[in-house]
Amino acid sequence: MSDQLVSGIEPPYYTVVFTSIRTEGDNGYGETAERMKELVEGIPGYLGYETARTPGGIGITVGYFRDEEAIAAWRSRLEHQSAQRRGRAEWYESYSVHIGRVERSHGFERG
Amino acid sequence: MSDQLVSGIEPPYYTVVFTSIRTEGDNGYGETAERMKELVEGIPGYLGYETARTPGGIGITVGYFRDEEAIAAWRSRLEHQSAQRRGRAEWYESYSVHIGRVERSHGFERG
Repeated sequence: MSDQLVSGIEPPYYTVVFTSIRTEGDNGYGETAERMKELVEGIPGYLGYETARTPGGIGITVGYFRDEEAIAAWRSRLEHQSAQRRGRAEWYESYSVHIGRVERSHGFERG
Repeated sequence: MSDQLVSGIEPPYYTVVFTSIRTEGDNGYGETAERMKELVEGIPGYLGYETARTPGGIGITVGYFRDEEAIAAWRSRLEHQSAQRRGRAEWYESYSVHIGRVERSHGFERG
């Protein structure tokens, strides 16, 4: 589970922002999402992720990667590509992906 | 309300990823959040935002801006700075901000 914030990564790094609106029902989504979490952990340069979904509304997942090579490695995993195809066929009404290079970050933690 | 995805913006642009864990209770948060949505609309180069929060879990808001100047203008608004101070005092257990320059994006919409 992602219930802690990703913080303290030294720039530069990359954020992959995935925003989505789901179709109705699970249709095997939950199981595949769990498998994708396992799979991405094995990618060199993967630094973590966070995910949030407002019930009945938008979902946002942010993946953190050290460099473009790490993102390319994740994109090229066949099992990930197969999940993406199934996402377009079954799980998502719409989605957007925004890949950003982070030069600045900051944070706050209650003392 | 943000219940549609931001999509179709031509790169380059910037994502400001704000991830947070809230304290208990509203404590005036909802009212200020509404006011901030109004206020950011007036910033030249502001392109939109999305927000999602898993009940009891992580919240993620992504703001989209055309350039660094737009982000600086938003950061320098006194009413926004005052809301940030109140956020640290009352509303957030922790948060992180990641500012990324987007060179690539893509999306999907069910036909």
